[in-house]
Amino acid sequence: MAKKNKQESKLKELGLKVLKDVEKIRNPNITIPVRALSNVIFNKKSKTLELGNKKSKRFFFNVAHAKKFLQTIEVASVSKNLLNEEKHASLRDVFYMMKRTIPGTSVNIVDEQSESDNVIEDLELLTGDSREQLNINANKNGSIVGKVTIEDAGDTIRWDKLGSGGWSIPSNVEDIKFKSVNAKYILYMEKAAVWERLNEDRFWEKHKCILISSQGQTTRGIRRLLQRLYEEYKLPIYVLTDYDAYGFYIYSVIKYGSINLAHASERLAIPGVKFLGISSNDIEKYDLKKHFIKLKDHDISRLKQLAEYSWFKDNKQWQKEFKTMRQYGSKAEIQALSSRGITFISEKYLPEKIKNKDFID
Amino acid sequence: MAKKNKQESKLKELGLKVLKDVEKIRNPNITIPVRALSNVIFNKKSKTLELGNKKSKRFFFNVAHAKKFLQTIEVASVSKNLLNEEKHASLRDVFYMMKRTIPGTSVNIVDEQSESDNVIEDLELLTGDSREQLNINANKNGSIVGKVTIEDAGDTIRWDKLGSGGWSIPSNVEDIKFKSVNAKYILYMEKAAVWERLNEDRFWEKHKCILISSQGQTTRGIRRLLQRLYEEYKLPIYVLTDYDAYGFYIYSVIKYGSINLAHASERLAIPGVKFLGISSNDIEKYDLKKHFIKLKDHDISRLKQLAEYSWFKDNKQWQKEFKTMRQYGSKAEIQALSSRGITFISEKYLPEKIKNKDFID
Repeated sequence: MAKKNKQESKLKELGLKVLKDVEKIRNPNITIPVRALSNVIFNKKSKTLELGNKKSKRFFFNVAHAKKFLQTIEVASVSKNLLNEEKHASLRDVFYMMKRTIPGTSVNIVDEQSESDNVIEDLELLTGDSREQLNINANKNGSIVGKVTIEDAGDTIRWDKLGSGGWSIPSNVEDIKFKSVNAKYILYMEKAAVWERLNEDRFWEKHKCILISSQGQTTRGIRRLLQRLYEEYKLPIYVLTDYDAYGFYIYSVIKYGSINLAHASERLAIPGVKFLGISSNDIEKYDLKKHFIKLKDHDISRLKQLAEYSWFKDNKQWQKEFKTMRQYGSKAEIQALSSRGITFISEKYLPEKIKNKDFID
Repeated sequence: MAKKNKQESKLKELGLKVLKDVEKIRNPNITIPVRALSNVIFNKKSKTLELGNKKSKRFFFNVAHAKKFLQTIEVASVSKNLLNEEKHASLRDVFYMMKRTIPGTSVNIVDEQSESDNVIEDLELLTGDSREQLNINANKNGSIVGKVTIEDAGDTIRWDKLGSGGWSIPSNVEDIKFKSVNAKYILYMEKAAVWERLNEDRFWEKHKCILISSQGQTTRGIRRLLQRLYEEYKLPIYVLTDYDAYGFYIYSVIKYGSINLAHASERLAIPGVKFLGISSNDIEKYDLKKHFIKLKDHDISRLKQLAEYSWFKDNKQWQKEFKTMRQYGSKAEIQALSSRGITFISEKYLPEKIKNKDFID
């Protein structure tokens, strides 16, 4: 239980602070940084999104604050119990654990999951710990393969001995211990089908790398795992997505962090990540125009939005990407490479791109 | 390559049949069972959905058939190449492999993935093999844990030594070899968060079972894996979902097959599967009414649809379920059990239900 002592003592501190307010007959209150777009800034030095200095106080004796104050204390108590019992709960579990009536009333502590999610994010800020460290898990998703050995939950696991499936990435990777990491870089891809292609071709073995995929959105578990490998083993990370605004945004979130999790950038953003493809150059070079898919209105407005982000605004390479895609009026899928042959991606496209360092930063 | 000889020779046979038509100056044609709701029947004996006897002929020299005829031959050729090269492709890959112009014209063989998907399903019927056996993979999704050892792609993999993540289930499980299976039953759950709960509590070890989860829809890979364990090891399978029409439908698809894959029921349906919960009885017994979520219009129409399915029509237990939910006007989530304590599901709910054989068939 020792490893969780730090988190537990911070939660206890929070409780004692409130208790002290009560004893001193002060209005109990908690100070929390403001989590709103108005307080999200792009730190040009660390190259990540982060929260500014705006703070707000939450008082118990304040009609507008009382319920949120109670929710904050309640979620701290739920987290402390989880840490005590050495159990993890999902966001949805925590919602149900908090969803009960306030004694002596018919009012629920929380009615919607958005309320419990919200105070969980506050608790991250109050303690400086991620919700995973507070034993509250995000979604589970994704597979990984590579010449890596880890220890997790008492088992020694070799990521290079897991056949066609790979290791299923848990929602919470905080307690994983890396025993040996034998890789030159990490390839993260948006699509599980591409991961299966590269795993079947044993790309990770031939090119000494780690292959990670999600299916759709990049979960916090995957982002944190990428970050840990990047920081602890200085492994370059290359991101492989479709040629579309959604793919570009996946890269943006992994690299810079996301607006609604700006407070967690320190634990999630990875400024060194590079975009491998599909890029506009690839479209020309690998003759993919015949597989173009026409942009829809929402694609175009998403591209405009991306171009306006402060972290892309002064980036000439990316501005060129956004502009070229709009000129093409088209997007393309990574699987379009399969029209060149089923192993074209693993035998030609990827080795060539990586050898030539043909990345976008 | 030997194991794939059967599939390859069937594809060759198809090609030779067409060639013979040409040589004999006959109009080349293929006979395919009709895949439409009008030809889907519920076999009361095998208790699965299957195709009826209606067949249609597809001719080369027929303006309405020519393109589809060509697509059918083309997909057979793509599959034969994959089998030759011992490579697997996703549905999307196959689409791009087929998407090229017909020589001497500006017409594409396929323009939309629905066209290639469609002839892939035809090819399943023509050969009697599943698309996985033809080296065309579905989606990858899901995790598994339990006291089982398998061999896959040259690796020996122990499902009980994979920490908090488990084995990531591949899209294609045809070539997995089971070396030892030490389990009394299988618990399949809709939600990965519930899987993580039960894995953390080492439920599979204490109760000698296998835990499988998807995240959302049950992929063909998962259904086929369930079926193989059910048939090869006679393991009972219990399905655990939310208390809602969508959860009931997940159960229905695993047990009886789905309408659009009726031709594949033999390889996918598992008539012996039982529904463990959440059931209407559970709602009463475990005091879950306070966590009710009001039914929406689409929930109600889905319930009506389920009640009309021929495989549910004469089933009194299920008709009672549908009726009770409509009377409640409410659904509930499995995580509502967490309001009774984080390990309530693994320490009380599941052991009690399984001991009392409190299932719906």
